[in-house]
Amino acid sequence: MDARKLFAEFLGTALLVFIGVGAATLSFGFDMTGSSTSAGVVVTALAFGLVMLILAYGIGPISGAHINPAVTMGFLVSGRIPVTEAIGYWVAQILGGIAGAAVLRGMFSGATGYSTSHQGLGADGYGDASMIHLGLGGAFVAEVVLTFIFVAVVLAVTSKAASTVASCLAIGFALGTVHLVGIPLTGTSVNPARSIGPALFVGGDALSQLWLFIVAPLVGGAIAALVMLYLYPRKAEVSAAAHEKVEASVS
Amino acid sequence: MDARKLFAEFLGTALLVFIGVGAATLSFGFDMTGSSTSAGVVVTALAFGLVMLILAYGIGPISGAHINPAVTMGFLVSGRIPVTEAIGYWVAQILGGIAGAAVLRGMFSGATGYSTSHQGLGADGYGDASMIHLGLGGAFVAEVVLTFIFVAVVLAVTSKAASTVASCLAIGFALGTVHLVGIPLTGTSVNPARSIGPALFVGGDALSQLWLFIVAPLVGGAIAALVMLYLYPRKAEVSAAAHEKVEASVS
Amino acid sequence: MDARKLFAEFLGTALLVFIGVGAATLSFGFDMTGSSTSAGVVVTALAFGLVMLILAYGIGPISGAHINPAVTMGFLVSGRIPVTEAIGYWVAQILGGIAGAAVLRGMFSGATGYSTSHQGLGADGYGDASMIHLGLGGAFVAEVVLTFIFVAVVLAVTSKAASTVASCLAIGFALGTVHLVGIPLTGTSVNPARSIGPALFVGGDALSQLWLFIVAPLVGGAIAALVMLYLYPRKAEVSAAAHEKVEASVS
Amino acid sequence: MDARKLFAEFLGTALLVFIGVGAATLSFGFDMTGSSTSAGVVVTALAFGLVMLILAYGIGPISGAHINPAVTMGFLVSGRIPVTEAIGYWVAQILGGIAGAAVLRGMFSGATGYSTSHQGLGADGYGDASMIHLGLGGAFVAEVVLTFIFVAVVLAVTSKAASTVASCLAIGFALGTVHLVGIPLTGTSVNPARSIGPALFVGGDALSQLWLFIVAPLVGGAIAALVMLYLYPRKAEVSAAAHEKVEASVS
Repeated sequence: MDARKLFAEFLGTALLVFIGVGAATLSFGFDMTGSSTSAGVVVTALAFGLVMLILAYGIGPISGAHINPAVTMGFLVSGRIPVTEAIGYWVAQILGGIAGAAVLRGMFSGATGYSTSHQGLGADGYGDASMIHLGLGGAFVAEVVLTFIFVAVVLAVTSKAASTVASCLAIGFALGTVHLVGIPLTGTSVNPARSIGPALFVGGDALSQLWLFIVAPLVGGAIAALVMLYLYPRKAEVSAAAHEKVEASVS
Repeated sequence: MDARKLFAEFLGTALLVFIGVGAATLSFGFDMTGSSTSAGVVVTALAFGLVMLILAYGIGPISGAHINPAVTMGFLVSGRIPVTEAIGYWVAQILGGIAGAAVLRGMFSGATGYSTSHQGLGADGYGDASMIHLGLGGAFVAEVVLTFIFVAVVLAVTSKAASTVASCLAIGFALGTVHLVGIPLTGTSVNPARSIGPALFVGGDALSQLWLFIVAPLVGGAIAALVMLYLYPRKAEVSAAAHEKVEASVS
Repeated sequence: MDARKLFAEFLGTALLVFIGVGAATLSFGFDMTGSSTSAGVVVTALAFGLVMLILAYGIGPISGAHINPAVTMGFLVSGRIPVTEAIGYWVAQILGGIAGAAVLRGMFSGATGYSTSHQGLGADGYGDASMIHLGLGGAFVAEVVLTFIFVAVVLAVTSKAASTVASCLAIGFALGTVHLVGIPLTGTSVNPARSIGPALFVGGDALSQLWLFIVAPLVGGAIAALVMLYLYPRKAEVSAAAHEKVEASVS
Repeated sequence: MDARKLFAEFLGTALLVFIGVGAATLSFGFDMTGSSTSAGVVVTALAFGLVMLILAYGIGPISGAHINPAVTMGFLVSGRIPVTEAIGYWVAQILGGIAGAAVLRGMFSGATGYSTSHQGLGADGYGDASMIHLGLGGAFVAEVVLTFIFVAVVLAVTSKAASTVASCLAIGFALGTVHLVGIPLTGTSVNPARSIGPALFVGGDALSQLWLFIVAPLVGGAIAALVMLYLYPRKAEVSAAAHEKVEASVS
């Protein structure tokens, strides 16, 4: 296994958490005058979406820029990554998420108005920890569906050879899209590594509810792989360049 | 008719409704502190636009990603899809819209502060159901014009062979654009399948006004096809790659 | 002169005004609960930017999608369009702007809370008609600089042959960019045809101040042409594909 | 050294400051009714991101569109620009930043409600000058990390030959991304030339804290160059077109 790939996954996940969770914390974890819930949703969704987009451009050529255990699960079920490499990716991603959260925690500790409770460090949650008090069942469904959408788009627009303009845009916009809906529901995980880091520092509900934000995204990622294998035969390895051929073959 | 195409249209429309109508409901159907109308418009328009964009990338190569009866109408009038296939698409789209609304309805039923009235499930409407109390005539004009814009862009940037970077971006941004104006007017249908699902669950005005959000978008889609046939001869089958040739031929 | 080109310029300018001025009116011309100035700026800037983007894709291959007399002025000074055609474009654009404003005026007349005063129909203005009460001099400078930026980008990314992914994105985002700053300053014209239509219906200050929003954008467009002729020799006819060659020639 | 390159860097930095700092000032330096912090963050981040994006398209073919001393530092450490040219770029960028701030200062002097204090001209700051009162240490870390992200993306997607669709999008979105998080932290410099101009006109804290917004971005840019040299051997000169080859070579 190439050390550069693992370093890229570690660094990429750390930066995803630094930007995405940082924006979530600044939008919802501080008491700012005149804050608007919907505007905070826009800030946070743009932050997660755009940082994913630029990381796809920046480290996509190195590791594929999974930076998310659910994406790696999708690649594993699709037969596009060996198990040993998937395990290496998962470890690097989780450590990266913890590192990103640690830097945020240290940085915010010197700020005024920071709350370590609920929305502290943008922790995901359900029940009282959800903006609309979404229960366990609803939260599980939401995380499965949102992760399904994100991972299905990733699998559709990538292939071993592709690191194209189109795929990076689609992947970034896909992560932004699911956040636009997911933030008021659960805070939006769709990525276990993004949830683990903050939960370790916030503790409490964030930690006791963490299992859902590990299990549901992995389930959503696996279902995405199965559906894309049906829609795109040949192990879902479809690049943008191959789209025409696929269309011809299914007509 | 290929089962994969119908499944893609069903799934795509369900996801369009889940994300787009979900964002609309969360922005306007819950009582959140400090909500801003304009910020809610941004969230909802981005949600519809970006989910369209990523579905164009994700299922465009399978079915063309119409996921909207008015788009299929535009293709039908342009002579780019046979009637039998159009009917299959319409059925799949309507069933998909109902499925997406059903999942949302179930999920929100366990949330706090959810309202099944007016803006419940992002139902479209006119008169008292419009944010600016736009009357029947204004609403009909708005839906025809907005659908015209959306479908005209779809027809201009697609062709049988095209599923390109440019066309997916243009199609997604076009749906987002019309929502930026349409949300305060009617909630923005421009897609009968997007309106039918929520109306069935919300009932009341949403159901009695539903006819407008079926008829006006279909009229707008048909007009778009006619105008594009005038602007782009050769049955409006113009791909991005063919733009130069067209320009030369009309000079 | 091709009738299709003039029709495309007429239709495009009408749709630009319908969407852009429509969004401005809905964001600032109605009394909505919990409105936020910055959020309204986002809605309006996205509306102008994205409708420009999709019109560049949709009618760019026909007429070049100027839909703005200042852009046509830039092409004229660059020697890229004959005078007779420029005059035809200007007439079509102005008529299109009036048509778009007329449809909006009719539609809003049946709505509640619509104001025909100041921000009615998104009229541009300075002094008391500016959100920050920017005076005549500041408004003139602002319109010249903002139009310069927009037209310079249009000239840099287009050429007779180009209607590419890159140029449409850059043009749309450029119009969005200048609106992010220009809305609180003057409402943002950078396009005489966009200002004339609303002013005719709103009257008062909008009409007496209209000259500035005709003169300043035309000046800005002409300056942009001169600067781009210096930066990009060979009549600024630089396509994205020609970028490498240009770079080599100026090194 | 080509005079066109220096003029492009001067003009580009002036326009970056005019649009970006202008948007920041209008969002946070005026007292507008119903303003929302998060919505102001969206306006400002979009303004910086999109103006960077369109300047990359507009002057990228001339000078590379660094318009930021930290980017030039990244190119210098990567061995992709000679020292003499880097010094010329730095001078042009700083003069451009001052020019942009001067035009803004003059324009706003005739407006109502403009404040020359703290958030006047969007000056960067820490401690009491930070929205969340972030201290010196946190501000330094934030500026280093955010500049690292921005410059790393620039270096990853550019090469001597590249001025592509992908690279301009990635660079613009990268600058927008770091602003989404950085605005509440320090106002976001990540660009010494963007901070120097406003500080000279605002004075006070903005001037006494200016050193941090010169040193930290240059450190972040240098680190980015070193990390990219590790991730992308061959002097980080990786174009989008070369991505596949790189991926093959690191597998």
